[in-house]
Amino acid sequence: MTQIKNIGLYTSGGDAPGMNAAIRAVVRTALYYDIAVTGIIRGYEGMIRGDFVPMHRKSVSNIVQRGGTILKTARSEQFKTAEGRKIAYENLKKNNIDALIAIGGDGTFTGAKIFGQEFDIPVLGLPGTIDNDLAGTDFTIGYDTAINTVVDAVDKIRDTAESHDRLFIVEVMGRDSGLIALRTGIAAGAEAILIPENKTGMAGLFDRLENGRKDKTSRIIIAAEGDDAGGAFEIGRIITEKFPHYDTRVSILGHIQRGGKPTCMDRVLASRVGVAAVEALRDGRSGEMVGVIHNEISYTPFDHAIKHSHEINAKFLKIVEILSL
Amino acid sequence: MTQIKNIGLYTSGGDAPGMNAAIRAVVRTALYYDIAVTGIIRGYEGMIRGDFVPMHRKSVSNIVQRGGTILKTARSEQFKTAEGRKIAYENLKKNNIDALIAIGGDGTFTGAKIFGQEFDIPVLGLPGTIDNDLAGTDFTIGYDTAINTVVDAVDKIRDTAESHDRLFIVEVMGRDSGLIALRTGIAAGAEAILIPENKTGMAGLFDRLENGRKDKTSRIIIAAEGDDAGGAFEIGRIITEKFPHYDTRVSILGHIQRGGKPTCMDRVLASRVGVAAVEALRDGRSGEMVGVIHNEISYTPFDHAIKHSHEINAKFLKIVEILSL
Amino acid sequence: MTQIKNIGLYTSGGDAPGMNAAIRAVVRTALYYDIAVTGIIRGYEGMIRGDFVPMHRKSVSNIVQRGGTILKTARSEQFKTAEGRKIAYENLKKNNIDALIAIGGDGTFTGAKIFGQEFDIPVLGLPGTIDNDLAGTDFTIGYDTAINTVVDAVDKIRDTAESHDRLFIVEVMGRDSGLIALRTGIAAGAEAILIPENKTGMAGLFDRLENGRKDKTSRIIIAAEGDDAGGAFEIGRIITEKFPHYDTRVSILGHIQRGGKPTCMDRVLASRVGVAAVEALRDGRSGEMVGVIHNEISYTPFDHAIKHSHEINAKFLKIVEILSL
Amino acid sequence: MTQIKNIGLYTSGGDAPGMNAAIRAVVRTALYYDIAVTGIIRGYEGMIRGDFVPMHRKSVSNIVQRGGTILKTARSEQFKTAEGRKIAYENLKKNNIDALIAIGGDGTFTGAKIFGQEFDIPVLGLPGTIDNDLAGTDFTIGYDTAINTVVDAVDKIRDTAESHDRLFIVEVMGRDSGLIALRTGIAAGAEAILIPENKTGMAGLFDRLENGRKDKTSRIIIAAEGDDAGGAFEIGRIITEKFPHYDTRVSILGHIQRGGKPTCMDRVLASRVGVAAVEALRDGRSGEMVGVIHNEISYTPFDHAIKHSHEINAKFLKIVEILSL
Repeated sequence: MTQIKNIGLYTSGGDAPGMNAAIRAVVRTALYYDIAVTGIIRGYEGMIRGDFVPMHRKSVSNIVQRGGTILKTARSEQFKTAEGRKIAYENLKKNNIDALIAIGGDGTFTGAKIFGQEFDIPVLGLPGTIDNDLAGTDFTIGYDTAINTVVDAVDKIRDTAESHDRLFIVEVMGRDSGLIALRTGIAAGAEAILIPENKTGMAGLFDRLENGRKDKTSRIIIAAEGDDAGGAFEIGRIITEKFPHYDTRVSILGHIQRGGKPTCMDRVLASRVGVAAVEALRDGRSGEMVGVIHNEISYTPFDHAIKHSHEINAKFLKIVEILSL
Repeated sequence: MTQIKNIGLYTSGGDAPGMNAAIRAVVRTALYYDIAVTGIIRGYEGMIRGDFVPMHRKSVSNIVQRGGTILKTARSEQFKTAEGRKIAYENLKKNNIDALIAIGGDGTFTGAKIFGQEFDIPVLGLPGTIDNDLAGTDFTIGYDTAINTVVDAVDKIRDTAESHDRLFIVEVMGRDSGLIALRTGIAAGAEAILIPENKTGMAGLFDRLENGRKDKTSRIIIAAEGDDAGGAFEIGRIITEKFPHYDTRVSILGHIQRGGKPTCMDRVLASRVGVAAVEALRDGRSGEMVGVIHNEISYTPFDHAIKHSHEINAKFLKIVEILSL
Repeated sequence: MTQIKNIGLYTSGGDAPGMNAAIRAVVRTALYYDIAVTGIIRGYEGMIRGDFVPMHRKSVSNIVQRGGTILKTARSEQFKTAEGRKIAYENLKKNNIDALIAIGGDGTFTGAKIFGQEFDIPVLGLPGTIDNDLAGTDFTIGYDTAINTVVDAVDKIRDTAESHDRLFIVEVMGRDSGLIALRTGIAAGAEAILIPENKTGMAGLFDRLENGRKDKTSRIIIAAEGDDAGGAFEIGRIITEKFPHYDTRVSILGHIQRGGKPTCMDRVLASRVGVAAVEALRDGRSGEMVGVIHNEISYTPFDHAIKHSHEINAKFLKIVEILSL
Repeated sequence: MTQIKNIGLYTSGGDAPGMNAAIRAVVRTALYYDIAVTGIIRGYEGMIRGDFVPMHRKSVSNIVQRGGTILKTARSEQFKTAEGRKIAYENLKKNNIDALIAIGGDGTFTGAKIFGQEFDIPVLGLPGTIDNDLAGTDFTIGYDTAINTVVDAVDKIRDTAESHDRLFIVEVMGRDSGLIALRTGIAAGAEAILIPENKTGMAGLFDRLENGRKDKTSRIIIAAEGDDAGGAFEIGRIITEKFPHYDTRVSILGHIQRGGKPTCMDRVLASRVGVAAVEALRDGRSGEMVGVIHNEISYTPFDHAIKHSHEINAKFLKIVEILSL
């Protein structure tokens, strides 16, 4: 059992629903094991500025249901320099912080990895990002909420699409990954999904629009923002040109996808990995992300966690095709 | 008591949540009074094409809670011609439709007015539009749902705004009217609202951003799409230029504002005016919109209903200013 | 202009969504006019115990969207005694509180009225109760949210009612008043509503079940908790006995009706009356509830506000009958 | 490849959100493979009565987002007799139904198993129940929606609990299983959970209430309806007796837990197993439930599927204890 006395806790990168549930879990678990927790405000930037607040049991009361992150988040250019990280480390020392838990995604863990290698401080990570683009966990904290937000929005858009016989292109988040588009496309009954991992999406869509059923009057297409076709407006332009008889509209869901009350599953996931991270620090673990794979807690080296595969379950694409018959 | 035997019912213009509740109310009330109802699909376009369906009690089962309109809606260029309207009238005659109830907004009632003047058929209107821009009713069907959709979306955006210390410009519907922006701005705790009716909005906003509290780290600005400043992206560009230290983002809510389950109030309003319209036809009324003013059913000539005042309750603007202190 | 320097603000009675929005409005408006605000925790009980907290601009940040009341609420037997009220008054004096704003319903205003008569301190009230049972305002803060919560719940119950061909009796809040039952009954497409104000509800329902359409397989009945029939379980028992061929179920919505995010309209109402109450104190008003009637701010003596009429819009009952055809 | 020509599709047992998404998936997939689908109304009862409807592509349009089941569900005493099942089989024959897909839970699959053994017709099952109490699938269709409904309700109740300093006992579904209570307890930040699988729940709770922190003013306890303590009202009675200083209230969530729009995950699960079931019938499979284990389609004999383990992840109970610190 490693003697940890004071965990520095921070969120970094894009905010995700469930981050607060994870913060609560870390704080309460640490206190349960008589470990103090220091909140680091605005991630690496706060570490450099020494923006620290002690976390008590009540600091995390009534936050399990709130979106965003009470510890705030920010970019830090300075932390990318060796000098910046040195200042950060000295601030931690000064405040007797002897371990770190980082909640975030790729960028967060890249920073955590380097920092843990350069300095003698154990660091663990929790997967907090709506993108679900990390290896080492079946789902990331925030993904389940984000896909429900998308599906709710598309349900609303479909009301209009059906009333007006329109074709809608709905752009969802996912710069490098179609994971949000894929599940929401199935759930929302989309005609087609366009994702960066599938290079033939537009061709397939054109084929459907040309040769598909003529009696279908409204259609929803889900496009990940990172799709090769160049964004929803460009896709809309092309479709309008090629299929002028469709009344084509574009909707970019944008920032609403990051916020909102976390779903039950996101809160449970956040709570589980939050508890496990504190226990893992006590067990002497470091340099890993704590996730859940097949319903069991798993530990994945940062290096591996950020190299998520871009492989897409081909069966999911097939399902979209079959069900939008 | 006028002997009406078969009411032609249609929705027209942009769809609005609660239109289905109004359709249900008209159908059930007509049947209650032993009057038949014929659904006209896609508004004036369907009238010209003769796209008619008989409506039964069960046709409107389980729709009170659904967004959109089961009767669909469309634009009709042909109906703007005297010839088109003549075809429409002949179709009504052929189908023994001897009265009309139109659900929609400005354009719908303009068509209804002309049609009622040209031909010998009583026509009544129900205010169905999310914009709340009709005289003769305190609220239009769909407005209450739309403002709740906006507020829900802004609540989500605020999670991100606060986590990242950002300034968000959120564009809401309202080409000619700031009515959606006004109430949602108050409800969402906006820093400022920009609406077509207020020419000094941008100047006031600049003043706040320059001279206001410096410790406020996140801000939400609600902009009606019709604001003079030229849309949310243009406003974002200007603010970024003048206030580069703000991390400014833009979100255009777009089409999600039209859809979704109607709120309780929208369903009640739709039900009340739906019942009242059928009873008003029986009482021999025509050429009017049926609304609710001060909790009482009211009848307003189409001419007057579409000339809604663009006056804004100045006190509401003051409230935004005070509360965003 | 009366010179008010420090407003004591409290919530009392059952909590209602939008109370926090009203608290925020009072605090921000007072600060805007350079008046301090002291939060009194747990209403009259806190006044007696001297449980006071200074309210700052940030005390009310990010609460506009939260249900419940950050000032808490409690019953106080002691305040019903002259002695208890004397202690309360002395506490106010000691803390230089020279005016009061009370957010609540009947009981709150009864206390406020007596207190304002006994002691030389101006007191104004804001209508905060889900029951909508106050005169002097078209709606109370919390009512709109509560009826939407009810309608959402009944929409869910209808899924099961239709899938299983069941008759559901859904009990909603309203010990003395059918106002929640009335609007939600219309909005949820209820078969019938049973409310304390209507003595013939059960007879009418029996008639419908006996002589109504036989092909209707599922039915929803909304019963106010204060209905003469004796509560939903008793109603269920009677219906099961008289109509054994119905698969009858009972659902008591209970406490979920008090909570949740306030709707847009509740937040706007709370904001308007909150701003107006501070301005009214400055104008020298006292002993009144500040409400909104026909979209205008109105002031009603406490005495009158708590004597709300038990008259029900008969047309609403007729609408339920017609629409559940 | 088995030559299936006409699949009989039915839902049975308690309705669950996502059943309609599963119906849609079966119908569309069958049509994709040129197989007809016959809807059997009200499960086994409809099979005996011959209540059959042909399902087309449009029969399942716009239902992916709806709760309940468009095929309805009912109990059937007659199907429990050999004679009843014989009538059912003859009806299937007469209608050229040569395979069955059953959506439901324990009871549904028990019937399906016997029927498949007695008669020469392939039968597959889809796990449709909010209880998540089937082996052979990580989650059942409806569970994710139900736990989100519970968490939403408890979030509302907490607003009141905190405003009034109350202790709430919230009863959730689960006659034999604490699976709903377990996850929702973690997600809702419950003080304790009481479930049938844990015999020491009440003792642990008493200990917490006696020896736990005294400054915690509000508490939520989640009780599964099947807990040994005898239901929420009985638990409330006992706590009120032993801990009279708590203001204890009871809320029984009841039927709202079955309804509502399915979540994204429930729709995706329903779609995946719906597609897979049709493909499995073509592959000659029978007598199995099609589920998803570790993100892969899995097939489990009915016998095994209904014998779900009552083992509870002990770590989950520990998490509740730690986090409610």
